[in-house]
Amino acid sequence: MSVPEAGVPAVSIREVGPRDGLQIEDPVSLAEKLRLVEALAATGVSRIEATSFVSPRAVPALADAELLAAELHQWPGIEFSALVAGIGGAKRAVAAGMKTVEYVVSASNSHSEANTRSTTEQATERIGEVVRIVHEAGGRVEVIVATAWDCPFDGPTDPDRVLRIAEQAKEFGADQFSIADTIGTATPGRVGRLIDAVGERVGDFGLGVHFHNTRGAGLASALAAVQHGVRNLDASTGGLGGCPFAPGASGNIATEELVYMLEDMGIATGIDLDASIRAAAVAEEIVGHTVPSNLLRAGDRKR
Amino acid sequence: MSVPEAGVPAVSIREVGPRDGLQIEDPVSLAEKLRLVEALAATGVSRIEATSFVSPRAVPALADAELLAAELHQWPGIEFSALVAGIGGAKRAVAAGMKTVEYVVSASNSHSEANTRSTTEQATERIGEVVRIVHEAGGRVEVIVATAWDCPFDGPTDPDRVLRIAEQAKEFGADQFSIADTIGTATPGRVGRLIDAVGERVGDFGLGVHFHNTRGAGLASALAAVQHGVRNLDASTGGLGGCPFAPGASGNIATEELVYMLEDMGIATGIDLDASIRAAAVAEEIVGHTVPSNLLRAGDRKR
Repeated sequence: MSVPEAGVPAVSIREVGPRDGLQIEDPVSLAEKLRLVEALAATGVSRIEATSFVSPRAVPALADAELLAAELHQWPGIEFSALVAGIGGAKRAVAAGMKTVEYVVSASNSHSEANTRSTTEQATERIGEVVRIVHEAGGRVEVIVATAWDCPFDGPTDPDRVLRIAEQAKEFGADQFSIADTIGTATPGRVGRLIDAVGERVGDFGLGVHFHNTRGAGLASALAAVQHGVRNLDASTGGLGGCPFAPGASGNIATEELVYMLEDMGIATGIDLDASIRAAAVAEEIVGHTVPSNLLRAGDRKR
Repeated sequence: MSVPEAGVPAVSIREVGPRDGLQIEDPVSLAEKLRLVEALAATGVSRIEATSFVSPRAVPALADAELLAAELHQWPGIEFSALVAGIGGAKRAVAAGMKTVEYVVSASNSHSEANTRSTTEQATERIGEVVRIVHEAGGRVEVIVATAWDCPFDGPTDPDRVLRIAEQAKEFGADQFSIADTIGTATPGRVGRLIDAVGERVGDFGLGVHFHNTRGAGLASALAAVQHGVRNLDASTGGLGGCPFAPGASGNIATEELVYMLEDMGIATGIDLDASIRAAAVAEEIVGHTVPSNLLRAGDRKR
């Protein structure tokens, strides 16, 4: 076995800090968010998950989704996306001008019902309607499977539940498909197996992965994903995205750490590491507390 | 490419918290160290790096090496080792009853001179004398190459410098050989290549690896090492071992996070995860500050 060497296909990192990172923080001003987007844009990142169109009561930190969306024309070279959890959110997102909509379906029934009051089956059936709404507006839809490996309520997720959502997503005409380790429990073996299984079931579907570093294995899982052929990875500046109820808990894998690892492996990301570290420092300033990025503390190895 | 599945040879983790973890902390009492060793012994770990026999002025936290060594008979099932940086240290270690001695040679000349006032060549030549001293006392010698990938002063280390030390270690009759990412800059690609190169140069030499998580890629590098056939990995309870001059900087890869990842991949470690998390909590209590273990904050996934 070996890891990819220089010359392997480049990886595309989607920055999710403004959405998955900030959603659990105390709300920050629109101006601060735009400052963060500006710092992220300066890194060379080509895709940013900007916000989500969900209940402002449930996620007050992203209640300004429409206002933020109205500003994104400032960075025409970046593909911005927004997350939605249902039809209403999809309508809001396209009305706000979002061209890429992520529709989340939780593979675990308990998690699905807790978050959307719908079963996994009901949420899956809605893919068709979301696709219709977004496609009619000229946009594209990515279906993201939450709790793809484990659920906080139900324990390990039967991989077949994920594969059935993948099949349905393809049938309903979704443009892309991702699997998310919502609670940060996945490890490289299970990551590789699920990726392989998705590929066997639905073929090339622009598969993306989304990991948290909650138990320290986030970058190892990202490595396994790349080894298994995945080229679309989510990451969050500074590792934002920890649980607000667990002080010190880590969040998403940190963008700058993923860039450091991949670039040092000769895998191009298109992201400038120094600028990425600077963006993480901006993120830390904006949220007003230490962010869980080891690299932000230590700096690049060339220093 | 794939990652190891259930049934692959088990991995042996050496716990280095009492030495590499505590060496940069404010000195803790012998009683507290013994309490930590007791907590570690309860995890099922079979190898512990207990202390080092170096200058008490340089490393005041380990000035009680002889006193600690005299207590280790309490845990007869565990192989305890001690690190030394020269002939004097080797003599002290065997006089104190240590049966496994780790002799460190820095592959980077500047690092070697800064730490031992010897060039890499001079330090390498001493392997023979260290082996003689330890073997005469009935012990075994592991040669550890520091700065095996990068040096804080000289930048990237020429792999051939590591390979020449490996050859010399074998010629001088050392029993085992390890490579250490002293400053936490290694990434999976370079890890795999150096491991392969060592194997090609000296064959089966019980190769061990030692990673820090300074830039977040520690567990990913450990994964790469296992994928490349390494079965001996160092780790530190709670991720102890950060730099005292960089608050919040992470240290060695955390034992409990390595155990979590490997066991979840079906790779047996012989270490009980719950006991390992408890030991990390003891470590945190003893050093009196938050330790950089995400898993310690989050808990096992089964909870």
